[in-house]
Amino acid sequence: MSTTIDSTPKADGYRMPAEWEDHSGCWLIWPERPDNWRLGGKPAQAAFTTVVAAIAETEPVTVAVSAAQYDNARQHLPAGVRVVEMSNDDSWIRDCGPTFVVNAAGDVRGVDWIFNAWGGLVDGLYFPWAADDAIARKVCEIEGVDRYRTDFVLEGGSIDVDGEGTLLVTEECLLSAGRNPELSKDEITERLCNYLGVLKVIWLPEGVYLDETNGHVDNFCRFTSPGHVMLTWTDDENDPQYARSLAALKILEATTDAQGRKLEITKIHQPGPITITAEESAGVDAVDGTLPREPGDRLAGSYVNSYIGNDLVILPIFNDPHDAAAIAAYTELFAPRRIVTVPGQEILLGGGNVHCITQQRPSGK
Amino acid sequence: MSTTIDSTPKADGYRMPAEWEDHSGCWLIWPERPDNWRLGGKPAQAAFTTVVAAIAETEPVTVAVSAAQYDNARQHLPAGVRVVEMSNDDSWIRDCGPTFVVNAAGDVRGVDWIFNAWGGLVDGLYFPWAADDAIARKVCEIEGVDRYRTDFVLEGGSIDVDGEGTLLVTEECLLSAGRNPELSKDEITERLCNYLGVLKVIWLPEGVYLDETNGHVDNFCRFTSPGHVMLTWTDDENDPQYARSLAALKILEATTDAQGRKLEITKIHQPGPITITAEESAGVDAVDGTLPREPGDRLAGSYVNSYIGNDLVILPIFNDPHDAAAIAAYTELFAPRRIVTVPGQEILLGGGNVHCITQQRPSGK
Repeated sequence: MSTTIDSTPKADGYRMPAEWEDHSGCWLIWPERPDNWRLGGKPAQAAFTTVVAAIAETEPVTVAVSAAQYDNARQHLPAGVRVVEMSNDDSWIRDCGPTFVVNAAGDVRGVDWIFNAWGGLVDGLYFPWAADDAIARKVCEIEGVDRYRTDFVLEGGSIDVDGEGTLLVTEECLLSAGRNPELSKDEITERLCNYLGVLKVIWLPEGVYLDETNGHVDNFCRFTSPGHVMLTWTDDENDPQYARSLAALKILEATTDAQGRKLEITKIHQPGPITITAEESAGVDAVDGTLPREPGDRLAGSYVNSYIGNDLVILPIFNDPHDAAAIAAYTELFAPRRIVTVPGQEILLGGGNVHCITQQRPSGK
Repeated sequence: MSTTIDSTPKADGYRMPAEWEDHSGCWLIWPERPDNWRLGGKPAQAAFTTVVAAIAETEPVTVAVSAAQYDNARQHLPAGVRVVEMSNDDSWIRDCGPTFVVNAAGDVRGVDWIFNAWGGLVDGLYFPWAADDAIARKVCEIEGVDRYRTDFVLEGGSIDVDGEGTLLVTEECLLSAGRNPELSKDEITERLCNYLGVLKVIWLPEGVYLDETNGHVDNFCRFTSPGHVMLTWTDDENDPQYARSLAALKILEATTDAQGRKLEITKIHQPGPITITAEESAGVDAVDGTLPREPGDRLAGSYVNSYIGNDLVILPIFNDPHDAAAIAAYTELFAPRRIVTVPGQEILLGGGNVHCITQQRPSGK
């Protein structure tokens, strides 16, 4: 019950809403692959269940799960959560799921980007990725929304919008060799405007240091309200993150949004740096062709990688000295929404965090 | 989003509605297994698509399909049909899907029977059947209806109700050694009353000759309206079907329904007998443990195996001299519903017909 449409959202009067606009639900994928999640995925499954339970307090949640894990997921997830069978290669529905767009009448459609596991055969993180690439279509079928299938490689985590015409991206990701190397920056800008219904793209150079997604913006810099962004920061000038954050700060200070506003910028100091322990590494299957998880590897931990639900925000924390400042900043930025913290380490070990594992379904209202 | 309930529909005020009561949709499963459907299932897929297209004229249709066949099914099925991934062992959702029940307020729940492929290790038709046994739960999740999980082996094709308290079954099926041999006939009657919300069970001795389901009543004798049944018949006293139909006729003539009414009985002469051709048999994979399809085998062809949709009835026909009489009888029995005929041979080759491959989702209205 999902017709494929050949035009573009912009041409049809659709735009991607900001994450703080009203949701009618949220989707996740149950984690399981043992070459990415330690100990057969059991600690990650518990961590995802905590996130699901928190989101389910504020909006309906659907969890997609493989046939093999269906019974196990159904038993662990809260009864009020919808569980549907869906083949997958991993559990990052922010990146392989549809990007929902809405029009002024409140109609909702899905944009089905080409997904190639963050770089395909150039620097992708696993092979194959065909099941993940089919996720967006299957979600659109179940949601009963029509679908734009694009010829453009993109993950939902590489974009962030204010809902009023402005988009944040990083050059590190969108100009990477593993995505759309045949397109110029101008051509990519045009496609982003057409498929997201935005008027202005703010290009930041790079994202978080060692982020295996090639610097997804959702782990680095995101809108918190129209005219206001939060930016991953470090005060340590010797940390490789410093130059990245400073370069972004200068661009953000010098630009305006699509409505002509100067941007307010809230710096959120990064946790850690956080690294993989020997025990954590030992629980991950070694498989040729999948990114290894070696002891001592630095993880791209970030407080920016949160989920903005209907009346709460899910914020990953790391038992880190910087947790308190992040919580305080979020409390102010997102009032009157409640800030619900969840342990972020287990999801971070898989390569992302709360925002990466969720995909809101806007209500269109 | 489907809670499992430990009580029974009867205790909670629920009943199974008659098939002619209003539907909010219909479910099917895409056929594919090459040891049951000839030529890799391609002719059956075309036949199912014809049935889907006809039902989709009158109510929303969802087709469940394996991951492997998802793309193919999506391309062949009409755009307005919802396609969802769901592992399966074969395509008989009448038998492995939920039996929906409704209450006076219009609420809908699903009964999830134990499914064991028509007889388990005693005389079941294939092994394993675990994916099919999980179908009912997965359908309830997507429909968002709560579910009764039973400890009772039953297929939806072995029961037929008038929606006013009366149930038709056959002893051949419900008392078979491969289903609930530890239960007496009285104990089975009690369970049927509790799970279907009926007051009276009419037990017929046997169903259609050589029906591999152990004589499912939906291929043999069904209510067409309260107080009225149709019965598979043959005028050939030497045909093994004759004694079966006559025995049922005598019981039907002598009984009353739950409301105390005598039953009107319309005999529908069977087609054929129809047998498998050498060419048809040659297209089916030979697999140990799956019922073979040998040339010359008699099929359990029947006009009773139809689907009653919201404003039409889907009737399988067989390019047979008895087609015309069946169409005429249906036209009168189901007026003002339209009678839509579909070629029944291809589905019959797999062991059932239109009723077996469908499962209505009542609206509760």
